[in-house]
Amino acid sequence: MAAVQPLRLGMVGGGEGAFIGAIHRMAAALDGDWRLTAGAFSTDAGRNARTGELLGLDAARVYDTLDALVAGEAALPEGERIDAVAVVTPNYLHAPMAIAALNAGFHVFCEKPMAMNVAEAVAIADAAKASGRHFGLAFTYSAYLLVEEARLRVERGDLGAIRLVQVEYLQGWLSLPIDTGGNKQAEWRTDPARAGMGGCLGDIGTHAFQLAEHVSGLRVASVSADLSTHVAGRRLDDDVSALLRFDTDARGMLKASQVAAGEENGLKLRVYGERGGLEWAQMEPNTLTLRWLDRPTEVVRAGGPGLDPRSVALGRTPAGHPEGYIEAFANLYRAFAATIRGDANRWYPGISDGLRTMRFIEAMITNASSDQKWTMVDSGESA
Amino acid sequence: MAAVQPLRLGMVGGGEGAFIGAIHRMAAALDGDWRLTAGAFSTDAGRNARTGELLGLDAARVYDTLDALVAGEAALPEGERIDAVAVVTPNYLHAPMAIAALNAGFHVFCEKPMAMNVAEAVAIADAAKASGRHFGLAFTYSAYLLVEEARLRVERGDLGAIRLVQVEYLQGWLSLPIDTGGNKQAEWRTDPARAGMGGCLGDIGTHAFQLAEHVSGLRVASVSADLSTHVAGRRLDDDVSALLRFDTDARGMLKASQVAAGEENGLKLRVYGERGGLEWAQMEPNTLTLRWLDRPTEVVRAGGPGLDPRSVALGRTPAGHPEGYIEAFANLYRAFAATIRGDANRWYPGISDGLRTMRFIEAMITNASSDQKWTMVDSGESA
Amino acid sequence: MAAVQPLRLGMVGGGEGAFIGAIHRMAAALDGDWRLTAGAFSTDAGRNARTGELLGLDAARVYDTLDALVAGEAALPEGERIDAVAVVTPNYLHAPMAIAALNAGFHVFCEKPMAMNVAEAVAIADAAKASGRHFGLAFTYSAYLLVEEARLRVERGDLGAIRLVQVEYLQGWLSLPIDTGGNKQAEWRTDPARAGMGGCLGDIGTHAFQLAEHVSGLRVASVSADLSTHVAGRRLDDDVSALLRFDTDARGMLKASQVAAGEENGLKLRVYGERGGLEWAQMEPNTLTLRWLDRPTEVVRAGGPGLDPRSVALGRTPAGHPEGYIEAFANLYRAFAATIRGDANRWYPGISDGLRTMRFIEAMITNASSDQKWTMVDSGESA
Amino acid sequence: MAAVQPLRLGMVGGGEGAFIGAIHRMAAALDGDWRLTAGAFSTDAGRNARTGELLGLDAARVYDTLDALVAGEAALPEGERIDAVAVVTPNYLHAPMAIAALNAGFHVFCEKPMAMNVAEAVAIADAAKASGRHFGLAFTYSAYLLVEEARLRVERGDLGAIRLVQVEYLQGWLSLPIDTGGNKQAEWRTDPARAGMGGCLGDIGTHAFQLAEHVSGLRVASVSADLSTHVAGRRLDDDVSALLRFDTDARGMLKASQVAAGEENGLKLRVYGERGGLEWAQMEPNTLTLRWLDRPTEVVRAGGPGLDPRSVALGRTPAGHPEGYIEAFANLYRAFAATIRGDANRWYPGISDGLRTMRFIEAMITNASSDQKWTMVDSGESA
Repeated sequence: MAAVQPLRLGMVGGGEGAFIGAIHRMAAALDGDWRLTAGAFSTDAGRNARTGELLGLDAARVYDTLDALVAGEAALPEGERIDAVAVVTPNYLHAPMAIAALNAGFHVFCEKPMAMNVAEAVAIADAAKASGRHFGLAFTYSAYLLVEEARLRVERGDLGAIRLVQVEYLQGWLSLPIDTGGNKQAEWRTDPARAGMGGCLGDIGTHAFQLAEHVSGLRVASVSADLSTHVAGRRLDDDVSALLRFDTDARGMLKASQVAAGEENGLKLRVYGERGGLEWAQMEPNTLTLRWLDRPTEVVRAGGPGLDPRSVALGRTPAGHPEGYIEAFANLYRAFAATIRGDANRWYPGISDGLRTMRFIEAMITNASSDQKWTMVDSGESA
Repeated sequence: MAAVQPLRLGMVGGGEGAFIGAIHRMAAALDGDWRLTAGAFSTDAGRNARTGELLGLDAARVYDTLDALVAGEAALPEGERIDAVAVVTPNYLHAPMAIAALNAGFHVFCEKPMAMNVAEAVAIADAAKASGRHFGLAFTYSAYLLVEEARLRVERGDLGAIRLVQVEYLQGWLSLPIDTGGNKQAEWRTDPARAGMGGCLGDIGTHAFQLAEHVSGLRVASVSADLSTHVAGRRLDDDVSALLRFDTDARGMLKASQVAAGEENGLKLRVYGERGGLEWAQMEPNTLTLRWLDRPTEVVRAGGPGLDPRSVALGRTPAGHPEGYIEAFANLYRAFAATIRGDANRWYPGISDGLRTMRFIEAMITNASSDQKWTMVDSGESA
Repeated sequence: MAAVQPLRLGMVGGGEGAFIGAIHRMAAALDGDWRLTAGAFSTDAGRNARTGELLGLDAARVYDTLDALVAGEAALPEGERIDAVAVVTPNYLHAPMAIAALNAGFHVFCEKPMAMNVAEAVAIADAAKASGRHFGLAFTYSAYLLVEEARLRVERGDLGAIRLVQVEYLQGWLSLPIDTGGNKQAEWRTDPARAGMGGCLGDIGTHAFQLAEHVSGLRVASVSADLSTHVAGRRLDDDVSALLRFDTDARGMLKASQVAAGEENGLKLRVYGERGGLEWAQMEPNTLTLRWLDRPTEVVRAGGPGLDPRSVALGRTPAGHPEGYIEAFANLYRAFAATIRGDANRWYPGISDGLRTMRFIEAMITNASSDQKWTMVDSGESA
Repeated sequence: MAAVQPLRLGMVGGGEGAFIGAIHRMAAALDGDWRLTAGAFSTDAGRNARTGELLGLDAARVYDTLDALVAGEAALPEGERIDAVAVVTPNYLHAPMAIAALNAGFHVFCEKPMAMNVAEAVAIADAAKASGRHFGLAFTYSAYLLVEEARLRVERGDLGAIRLVQVEYLQGWLSLPIDTGGNKQAEWRTDPARAGMGGCLGDIGTHAFQLAEHVSGLRVASVSADLSTHVAGRRLDDDVSALLRFDTDARGMLKASQVAAGEENGLKLRVYGERGGLEWAQMEPNTLTLRWLDRPTEVVRAGGPGLDPRSVALGRTPAGHPEGYIEAFANLYRAFAATIRGDANRWYPGISDGLRTMRFIEAMITNASSDQKWTMVDSGESA
């Protein structure tokens, strides 16, 4: 047996000072499945070079642009060139970059939301299909061990038929007009040309939606939405409220806000069925609470007794040694690597999650500007 | 100075086995402000008599009906007859009984919701006005010490202008069809003829609504509602979802459910302003969480440092000696007694809270059966 | 059947401004089992009279002294005179007053600690035995619903043989030298002549000890103690640490402090056996946590599923409607009343708890001033 | 500027199936500061080779023994050979291996406890001094961001002079006799020849002790200990209780247990001073609670407002994106790498922490077998 070598990763975006690029790098490094090998980190040449140096990259593989990266890497022999591209740019670059990388034969792991609109997302889907390459999306929260446990509990019927889904994602970091005050993260996220149609909706509303569908196993059939902007001058929504109807009799509510002053990263999901309910909150991710009609509440813990072996496989530590956000992110990179290596049974969020969330965004925006109570979320089946 | 004697209370409803009548009696007794003196506890004569005996009442003051009680007590000399009537019957009897008692010159302390509909509520309001008697409503949750602290914090501007109000009230006790299985509490609450137009909406949605308006100091201007019934054969809603728009730019969501399996009595309010947010949950009522944009979260505690003297006045114990539901209820009876004794500065929920909640119920039901996105809540100003 | 009349209570101590007297009165009133009928509230005549008036007492039954109360009440006919005396004075008065009241034929419900020393406690025990009257002690925390559930779980063997008992009681209110600054509660509690040999030890260490023995069903065989005083000039301990060995192989630790700055009333008990452990904390008393070797942690709730009927009987509200300190206290008065009325199966803390805690205090103080590792707690069997 | 290359790490121990070796590898990989380059993972040749292959190592650098590793690596040119050795074997091998590696000129990062006894620890200290190489110890818990914040708060006097230190570390995984049932982790940890004099004491009691001294800034002057073994046939203690006296007037308690059935990894520290107290619990490590005499409790959060810049530097994510055990561990490897690279201002636990904990173990064992109340912890100053 030959020593197992890590896959090679190229990254576009994620220069010094960017938040999410560094997270991707740590997540990719954690389990030894990936080695960062190439990058086009910034359109600022100095910043790009500096980032490459700090990350220990060969300068020849620090490229000016995604196009150069794709071309340069494609020209290298198979045992040297990168296996996949991580796209960690602002939203408006997701589609063109992902499509270029896929077309050049690279797998793509992309930040969410998938694209600026449904049409772009469909174009990515088409490119992935045509290229036969894998496409992953960083819906990180669905990769926590106990989110998988929650999903499995619902799937195997522990709760009975699902009646209610309550999902919320509360942040407060956009409470002040920092988007016009020099905060780069805030700036592009509130610019329709770079972020897309949804502000808070696209940035975190999509996480809430994807988590709710993923765990409940249900599809949102229609939405009734109220989008609002609480900071003067801001061009996109910073607060989202919605009623949800599912493709069963289940009902739901979705709340996302970036002006819930004092909240950090409060993603919380509750799902209730005929016999019980479950609750999971991202800020204390190693605890899953199960409530029952006829017996005491149970607190299921990552690493503890009572877990399904499929969720256990997502953990690295014994009970009581907390895992966090980076480990959840690493679960995505681990599953993506395993898939590339030929394991057909590993789940990670991808094309279908991306298309659903883009259709959700469109339905929400359509509804929010209408007097109509309900707007259907396109099932995509006619597409 | 003569010894202070308790006020005399008559009770209608609340016979053996009823839940809320016993709570009223404990709440009235706790601070020594009231003594239960008369009652018409049940239409079942044996049960009525037994209840009176167990409660130590003079048999002559255990009456067959509210009418008999009103007549009998009115015939007694002023120093002997009751001062007020507690109405703890199912909803359909609130209006006729409250009006009869008011008309006979008694103060009335009534269970919520105020009545079966707005018209009845207005009739009670008119009777109270005509009689010059006081009318209190058991919106108990607004009487907790830390709810008052929360209200004061909003009022004095600690949070800045309010942007978001999230209120929820989750119960699970109606998850199974117990309303057709002999549970008396469930039976009348799901019968439109006795409970009114709203099931879960009237029973607990009203609590959530009243708490949200009371603490935020805002008025709900319009609602978008989804009412649903998840148990086959049930005649009223058992689950309520709503988007709220206020009379400012603030937005909100209201969730109430009695089929959230495994939940107990999960009333929770969160209010966010420009600078921070607050959270209070009824099941751990001695804690109020204040989150801030620019400094660490604070945990304000009943009996602890940092409270407004006006909320301190609602407590009985030092910090760390928990007070609960009965003490909150007793705060209502204490304020109602003080008002009757002439203190004009004591707050308790009454006519205006009752009218608001009835108008909310009507707006919710109107909206839920319509394709229109928003329905205004009648401000009552034309009335 | 004649109407059930409340028992009549006389109170000694508990004048205006005293904390615990008011709690006793609310606790006695809550369930209607008692009516405060007489009192000797204060040695200050004006304060005594004022307290009586505020409480609605007949001035003839507001006495100058305990002796006058005992004599005056004993002279009244049986259907009028009080049934029991509540002793809510500082510690040094417990024994003389309890003994006088017992000797005069009254039942006595007394604050803890029982007395100033073991000898006094034995004298009370002798007086109770000789008089045939009942003697209750306000070890209130053992009367919470979920403390009884915890005790029953241990008793029925759910946890297996008990190995560890961890009990702590942390307060911070004596962190500053308020005992020399006019705080009356602090003043007498730190005065050996009025409080006894133990400061923190007697005031709250006894609660911790009683709770630990009561729930675990074990007896502390020997202690190793460290008593310290952290505020300059204070004459009694304000901080207590101890290692415990039980009459089995179980081990334990006891911590009590009144200088744990910022803590409120943090009484917490954990008991571990071969198969699992339990945790209960007074500040959130409606939750009992059960941890298991082989299955998820369970959260047992007051009013919820999974309770023993004997603990259910200690509750007044459905799940999710919190009960607190006053309700626990009322459980004592309810059980004491039932016992006086002839129910032989009601538990409340009394003589045996009082003697154990006094012997514990003596062993702790002996050990703390010695170089010897362990000091036995007198089993009382030679007495 | 040349690209920054990772340091090269060799590992001894940590073959397939071992818990802590994998954690070291992830921690070293996370920030890109280290690359695992060589190893002697197991004395089982097949297991050793397999581990090397899975980890992608060059087979030439997978050695049979630590001696072979040291010799082989020392023979390589400077730019190729490893920089440091991670020692992740059972305790009895720590000293010989660390000393051999130090003597050969390698830095050493070692699992705790440092050695089998004080004499061995002193020998390591001497070897480190003689070689001029760095020696780190995996007291991981002291590397959490909020532990550093806690330490800084104490150091800068926020709490006033420290009065009380309560530390506990509760696990339940040794509740059953799994040490004689084939569990390798349990087996060596309960074997005096491989674990040393302390069982639970050495394994986790040392963590509790180190954390308490590190955060409080105080030294334990003397201990009074009770060590017990609750599982029949077990040869070392599985439960530890101790009273602590510090080199000031402060008092403390230390509890460590591996038979607290149902507990996971419950390390918790509380420190109280004249003005307030702090609490940190490892299982929810992103929260630090600060309680105050005169204002509401504050909840300080990793990534949130109010942190000292020196603790902020230990974080990787914004508030609300939880970091966990592996990130804390990575903080050790990051600081150790920075130190090797010449940064003299980075803290990680090392020689002095190791010596203190070994002296603590000896004092505890001496005291536990004596009738003497207190045993001094050797200050090491005479050494």
